[in-house]
Amino acid sequence: MPTPRFDVTTLGEVMIRLSVPPGQRLESAASVDLHPGGAEGNVAVALARLKRRVAWVSRLPNNPLGRLITNHLRSSGVDLDGVVWSETGRVGSYYLEFSAPPRPIQVVYDRADSCAAHMQPDQIDWDTLLDTRLVHVTGITPAISPSCRAVVAELVQRARAAGVPLSFDINYRARLWTEAEACETLLPLVQGVDLLFCGQADAGRIFGLSGEREGILRGLAEQTEAKNVVTTFGADGAMAWDGQRLWHEPALPVQILDRLGAGDALAAGVIHGWLNGSLAEGLRYGVVLAALILTQYGDMVLTTPDEVEMLLTRTTGGGLMR
Amino acid sequence: MPTPRFDVTTLGEVMIRLSVPPGQRLESAASVDLHPGGAEGNVAVALARLKRRVAWVSRLPNNPLGRLITNHLRSSGVDLDGVVWSETGRVGSYYLEFSAPPRPIQVVYDRADSCAAHMQPDQIDWDTLLDTRLVHVTGITPAISPSCRAVVAELVQRARAAGVPLSFDINYRARLWTEAEACETLLPLVQGVDLLFCGQADAGRIFGLSGEREGILRGLAEQTEAKNVVTTFGADGAMAWDGQRLWHEPALPVQILDRLGAGDALAAGVIHGWLNGSLAEGLRYGVVLAALILTQYGDMVLTTPDEVEMLLTRTTGGGLMR
Amino acid sequence: MPTPRFDVTTLGEVMIRLSVPPGQRLESAASVDLHPGGAEGNVAVALARLKRRVAWVSRLPNNPLGRLITNHLRSSGVDLDGVVWSETGRVGSYYLEFSAPPRPIQVVYDRADSCAAHMQPDQIDWDTLLDTRLVHVTGITPAISPSCRAVVAELVQRARAAGVPLSFDINYRARLWTEAEACETLLPLVQGVDLLFCGQADAGRIFGLSGEREGILRGLAEQTEAKNVVTTFGADGAMAWDGQRLWHEPALPVQILDRLGAGDALAAGVIHGWLNGSLAEGLRYGVVLAALILTQYGDMVLTTPDEVEMLLTRTTGGGLMR
Amino acid sequence: MPTPRFDVTTLGEVMIRLSVPPGQRLESAASVDLHPGGAEGNVAVALARLKRRVAWVSRLPNNPLGRLITNHLRSSGVDLDGVVWSETGRVGSYYLEFSAPPRPIQVVYDRADSCAAHMQPDQIDWDTLLDTRLVHVTGITPAISPSCRAVVAELVQRARAAGVPLSFDINYRARLWTEAEACETLLPLVQGVDLLFCGQADAGRIFGLSGEREGILRGLAEQTEAKNVVTTFGADGAMAWDGQRLWHEPALPVQILDRLGAGDALAAGVIHGWLNGSLAEGLRYGVVLAALILTQYGDMVLTTPDEVEMLLTRTTGGGLMR
Amino acid sequence: MPTPRFDVTTLGEVMIRLSVPPGQRLESAASVDLHPGGAEGNVAVALARLKRRVAWVSRLPNNPLGRLITNHLRSSGVDLDGVVWSETGRVGSYYLEFSAPPRPIQVVYDRADSCAAHMQPDQIDWDTLLDTRLVHVTGITPAISPSCRAVVAELVQRARAAGVPLSFDINYRARLWTEAEACETLLPLVQGVDLLFCGQADAGRIFGLSGEREGILRGLAEQTEAKNVVTTFGADGAMAWDGQRLWHEPALPVQILDRLGAGDALAAGVIHGWLNGSLAEGLRYGVVLAALILTQYGDMVLTTPDEVEMLLTRTTGGGLMR
Amino acid sequence: MPTPRFDVTTLGEVMIRLSVPPGQRLESAASVDLHPGGAEGNVAVALARLKRRVAWVSRLPNNPLGRLITNHLRSSGVDLDGVVWSETGRVGSYYLEFSAPPRPIQVVYDRADSCAAHMQPDQIDWDTLLDTRLVHVTGITPAISPSCRAVVAELVQRARAAGVPLSFDINYRARLWTEAEACETLLPLVQGVDLLFCGQADAGRIFGLSGEREGILRGLAEQTEAKNVVTTFGADGAMAWDGQRLWHEPALPVQILDRLGAGDALAAGVIHGWLNGSLAEGLRYGVVLAALILTQYGDMVLTTPDEVEMLLTRTTGGGLMR
Repeated sequence: MPTPRFDVTTLGEVMIRLSVPPGQRLESAASVDLHPGGAEGNVAVALARLKRRVAWVSRLPNNPLGRLITNHLRSSGVDLDGVVWSETGRVGSYYLEFSAPPRPIQVVYDRADSCAAHMQPDQIDWDTLLDTRLVHVTGITPAISPSCRAVVAELVQRARAAGVPLSFDINYRARLWTEAEACETLLPLVQGVDLLFCGQADAGRIFGLSGEREGILRGLAEQTEAKNVVTTFGADGAMAWDGQRLWHEPALPVQILDRLGAGDALAAGVIHGWLNGSLAEGLRYGVVLAALILTQYGDMVLTTPDEVEMLLTRTTGGGLMR
Repeated sequence: MPTPRFDVTTLGEVMIRLSVPPGQRLESAASVDLHPGGAEGNVAVALARLKRRVAWVSRLPNNPLGRLITNHLRSSGVDLDGVVWSETGRVGSYYLEFSAPPRPIQVVYDRADSCAAHMQPDQIDWDTLLDTRLVHVTGITPAISPSCRAVVAELVQRARAAGVPLSFDINYRARLWTEAEACETLLPLVQGVDLLFCGQADAGRIFGLSGEREGILRGLAEQTEAKNVVTTFGADGAMAWDGQRLWHEPALPVQILDRLGAGDALAAGVIHGWLNGSLAEGLRYGVVLAALILTQYGDMVLTTPDEVEMLLTRTTGGGLMR
Repeated sequence: MPTPRFDVTTLGEVMIRLSVPPGQRLESAASVDLHPGGAEGNVAVALARLKRRVAWVSRLPNNPLGRLITNHLRSSGVDLDGVVWSETGRVGSYYLEFSAPPRPIQVVYDRADSCAAHMQPDQIDWDTLLDTRLVHVTGITPAISPSCRAVVAELVQRARAAGVPLSFDINYRARLWTEAEACETLLPLVQGVDLLFCGQADAGRIFGLSGEREGILRGLAEQTEAKNVVTTFGADGAMAWDGQRLWHEPALPVQILDRLGAGDALAAGVIHGWLNGSLAEGLRYGVVLAALILTQYGDMVLTTPDEVEMLLTRTTGGGLMR
Repeated sequence: MPTPRFDVTTLGEVMIRLSVPPGQRLESAASVDLHPGGAEGNVAVALARLKRRVAWVSRLPNNPLGRLITNHLRSSGVDLDGVVWSETGRVGSYYLEFSAPPRPIQVVYDRADSCAAHMQPDQIDWDTLLDTRLVHVTGITPAISPSCRAVVAELVQRARAAGVPLSFDINYRARLWTEAEACETLLPLVQGVDLLFCGQADAGRIFGLSGEREGILRGLAEQTEAKNVVTTFGADGAMAWDGQRLWHEPALPVQILDRLGAGDALAAGVIHGWLNGSLAEGLRYGVVLAALILTQYGDMVLTTPDEVEMLLTRTTGGGLMR
Repeated sequence: MPTPRFDVTTLGEVMIRLSVPPGQRLESAASVDLHPGGAEGNVAVALARLKRRVAWVSRLPNNPLGRLITNHLRSSGVDLDGVVWSETGRVGSYYLEFSAPPRPIQVVYDRADSCAAHMQPDQIDWDTLLDTRLVHVTGITPAISPSCRAVVAELVQRARAAGVPLSFDINYRARLWTEAEACETLLPLVQGVDLLFCGQADAGRIFGLSGEREGILRGLAEQTEAKNVVTTFGADGAMAWDGQRLWHEPALPVQILDRLGAGDALAAGVIHGWLNGSLAEGLRYGVVLAALILTQYGDMVLTTPDEVEMLLTRTTGGGLMR
Repeated sequence: MPTPRFDVTTLGEVMIRLSVPPGQRLESAASVDLHPGGAEGNVAVALARLKRRVAWVSRLPNNPLGRLITNHLRSSGVDLDGVVWSETGRVGSYYLEFSAPPRPIQVVYDRADSCAAHMQPDQIDWDTLLDTRLVHVTGITPAISPSCRAVVAELVQRARAAGVPLSFDINYRARLWTEAEACETLLPLVQGVDLLFCGQADAGRIFGLSGEREGILRGLAEQTEAKNVVTTFGADGAMAWDGQRLWHEPALPVQILDRLGAGDALAAGVIHGWLNGSLAEGLRYGVVLAALILTQYGDMVLTTPDEVEMLLTRTTGGGLMR
């Protein structure tokens, strides 16, 4: 069997993020900083920075905002041949005030009716998308629109048929759909995936799992038959369960500038390790990448393999629990 | 008859403008400057800065972007009691690269489906809107959506019924509708208005008028039975026709930083003069305000009565032509 | 009796604050940020942002700096009809280096001889100032100049005569007068006020009160016969005494960007609660507003009723002590 | 014969440019803007933005500055597989004050001993470099160092041997070598090239050609036996001679922000047309690209095929002269 | 006779200039740029940058704003031993909007009651001030305050007594005093000075001289018995008259960013030439320095002897007229 | 014996530091901030800000970057008469990403082959350098180049011959030479110096001293016969040993913005106290200056004697230990 063209392919929406400088309020801001952001694109960039061969598929308008997004991803080395370009339509965006305790992070979404939301299954080059060692998707895409739901459903079905491993990050977005809708849609999609990512809060909201941590991971594995389950516990780090072994990796001490993108960075790290054959190593990569993105403005981590290796030596707290 | 509460009331959409710093391209921009902008709001601010009592009516979401717009207009003294607030919906926006010859100005609109576009006639406080010496509207609002078209139609009909003078700026937007649609919609609306504003290009596109300048103004007056007609000729200034007399006012020499808002500033100046009883004076105010806004970043002119009076003394080139 | 036109009216000086970007020293700064700031104006803006009907009275020069101040206050919805405009004179200013431990906050005042300092009693529209549910003043204004002292004295006397409730924030400024002068001037002014605000340090300097906290509040009430007394204890929050009950509200955990304006925000919150009939609720509003302003650059808090209500649910530590 | 992998390959040095904001002097600057810049990289980016398949070869240190350069070129779509990475060494840089008449543009070069200057012939992947429809080099590279001179000599010799067309831009740099050295080195290299670019001043300094314009182009063709010669005449535009026909294209009217990169943009445009089979068309592309880069900060033009086509319609002044 | 310690000493006020970024209005500015500025300090810096030994005397408060001024002048090499430091008092300031046609330059002065205005004759170290080849003063200082007037009067009288040459720039400031006051004060002071600078407008206002240019210079010389007279004619350059010969030097073509400081730069250039023994050469230095400062933000020119010499070769239009 | 002309003279390299704004990565930075930095220059500036008479000697190119460095040092009052200017050559530079845990501070040095590295003994004005109460050098300079090593060797030898006290900061730089080279070179140079500064890590690397703190200082004194030894222990402050007494001064609580320059600030403080005759006082000055520089961007501390005295009162934790 020939080596697949890509290590990881992914599909989803990237938006323009417009963030207010610290100490200002959006309603009196005179300028905002622009960064592209979107869960699957964030994962793609992190993996490409680690020298993985990565492709990202989406739908974008052929205008400066569409190109701003591809300029950014291309700069990190992400393959964009599968992007579907449209002569009309808009790019979704979101305005951001960083968290400044006692204020939580504040986001004004303006993402409805984007080009990506109008993505259709027949626009996708499935062969390229499946010419990969792993397909990564998230629960955001099916929440965006019915056609996006159809795209993800077809992608999952085709990957299963072709025997391509799947990675799925639940990523529940309460502003896009209800917990019931999410549960109904996502549960079939994640059955038997190779990697399942689910944050502690989402485990409760979508899977009804709470309480003791090991139980959450076991419960996720039982409900989904996922081969590997990774759950994040905020400042307490992340845990992974492969059906037999349980690992925990505490979060690195970090000076947080920008909270967005940490979950995606963690997923990228885990995928990186999984591709190397080690979930435990992936968890360590994940907490390093998550710490790095928290120190950078923007959702997409900028790093190098050398830097990550150097920081890996600092993740001494975690390891096999059981 | 009691003095009306306002000198001018107006209704329309204000958007968030996101402009790229000079010398950069939007597709590689790291930050953008924020200014609110929209034809009727621009007129309202200019008149309020000249100490006119002005109200602006629109529909906005109750979020930081909606408040950014009202903060700005309130800061200039525009009355906002008639703004309709919505708990959902979005603010329209547009991204801007300034003109840098040989490049023309470049705008990426992202205004579809805004809160303002969903404005309905039954949301408007008609009594307040008509408690004024003049109602000002533009041809942009009926182009935004069917419900906005209904709002403007009802406003014009109610103003006529109440004997409230009307000011109408044609402002054809080719990205929103065709010339034929615009013509069909606008022609009935502008019949008999007290002030009709129409740029030279729009006179050709909507009214089929071109060629010699005086003929354009006379043609507009004939087709619309407008009591006063004002036409702008770019760097050649503006002309006004009151059915008997023709005035011309050349543009002031100006160092242009930002081309947007000049037409609205001119309309505000003309309205200011008209309220004082002099179309000719209004034309002079108009070219002064237009010159001022061209030297400022943003669509809404920031000035004082004193400054405008001081600059009025420089408008020596124009006057009565016939 | 008709409803008063305003919920709160206030009178005082607002200055231009010029602050150095963090990490730089004023003596080598290449630029400074501009914000208007002044105790009574800060209170006015906070209350206006909570949708209170507020008027602010002062004296300003009719120049861009005077207008910078009114633009800002008008933007928040503060009524400015009572501002006295002068064709000559200056706006006071102060240069600010933020606190960067071990350095304390450093302020270079340049406020002498301002337009506000030349405010005279006969320039004030007393009827408007008293057409309110509460008049709020501070101990800064009588310290500015003899004529300002006369203005405050007349305001207090007229309010008492008209039965309008008074709020007074001691706000001792050591650079403007001595403790003895302040004591002699302020003591008669604050007799019997409805709301007395006095920081812990000022209680010692002006009223000779120190030691155990409850004793300070009781002592202030005894010396002033104020109906309600509020004392702030820095990071330990604030306490209120209404002659019978004592409340304490701890400060919210906060990431401080800019220390100025917290005391004024607290006063605004207390006034907001008092207008609702609850000193205890006001104390909770106060600590929320104080926390918010500490996370924003500038002395004037930008918030909404919704945001404050959301944060109110976090003030769980305080309540009735006795 | 198979289609070559690339349309154009090029080899040379890209440096970090550090430019002072307009109106400031470098000796008192507090910050500088960073842009990568270098003649061959500039050409590569312009062609990649026009959707040409382009590769750029150079030698860079594996540090953030090396990556800054590749991030930028990759963002535009330039292939970088041929870049030689070094674990040590530096990136050349140059500090820039823009021209502000009466001051000419002022550049402080700090480029000696860069990684690129240490490029050796045996480090180059010649097969990839020659798998192209055209190789483009400039007279800067042989001036940098003896080893770079050897690299260019070998490249020219290999291209000739393989029948790969050559494009050569003279680009004399007086700070790197003398006119005599340049002449002696460059003359053999440019013999028989398919495209020769030579500015008016360099024609005088290196080839001893001055006076009437047509004569300069004919003289260049005679001395070099180049198949096509293109000469730039600053604000007077550019001329091209293919041995039989002479074309002239005037410069577009332009508002200059940043003078650097115009010659490289012109060369890119000419190459683009040449690849399409039309030198005349290439000259028109060239003046459009040159005008565009003069309105943008940075040496590397950011544009799209659509924008260039739109502006092409404005190049009406030129054409076939003879 | 020993060589004097300084080439030029000067005395006057330097203020903090706060300028609004281009395209913004002061009344809505969020930040301002800081530069020190003041006629005599500007001359001192320009001469120090040309390697002249220069001392500047003034009175400043010992606070960060006072030090901002001395940091700046010291950085250029101006001797500050004669500065009188005060533990109290303020630095004068002025807010600036750059000229943006049709708007003229707009300045809000806030300079009253500065430390410099309280300078007293007995605070000055006269011996140091007179240990120089030339004393330079302007008509601004006597306009600031009576004590400053006394200081300048005593300086002029002492210089005459000691045989130290005097340079005087009329520099009438209409906001500080009337033409009549200025005339009465300045006429005695400038009698017999070695260098008299007087702009065309001031020649009319203070000396009643207008009309033909040569007549203005001769008239100034007659009324003042100045040994050398220099008059500036804006964009038409400057003329000099030494009682026998008349020179004219046209202004250099220049792209103006910031209009302030050109007159002071011209004076510095003339003084530099005069110290070299050539008024004609000084006029050429003057127009070069004036052109340079117009391209830089700030009132104080930053240049080098090399740069000035290089630009001198461009002043080819002027020379001896008579 | 006459009073020496200077309190302290020093010799070394100052470079241009280019730092990335917090939250950005160098490889995607659009701009960098410029500050001059270099161990001996940092010490010189700190002492000059404390009103010491200080001279700094180095070698710089006569270009804007060379002048940027001297402008900065001159602004603080450092005497620069001994600077050797070269018409060619470069200024060293280093690019900086601030520490953002978990990332350590990251520096890209580009300092090879600088003008300073080519400094020769015969270029130095030894008389001026020795006309001082103390000569201060560091272990960086001999590491830069053989000629710099010769310069420092000659300086140390001449100072000893002339009986001028010496201060030496070990400052081992692993990127410039090996520990063995450093040890071999530095050990003879520091024999018998009056002040020896050595960080805890360098004590281990160069002198093989570790373990208990007092032992390190005693060991340094024994190996070097230095009269006074000062060792820094990071956040644990610094200790001093004069052969008889041992002092410890804890670090001040500080909010760190920029970690560079703290060691040099400490050395400056110790020297300041030593000049006053008190090593203990110097240690207290040192921890105050170190705390101050950590709150400022740049390597060179900006302060005043008053500020340092005010903060001295906060250094209450330390004192004589033995």
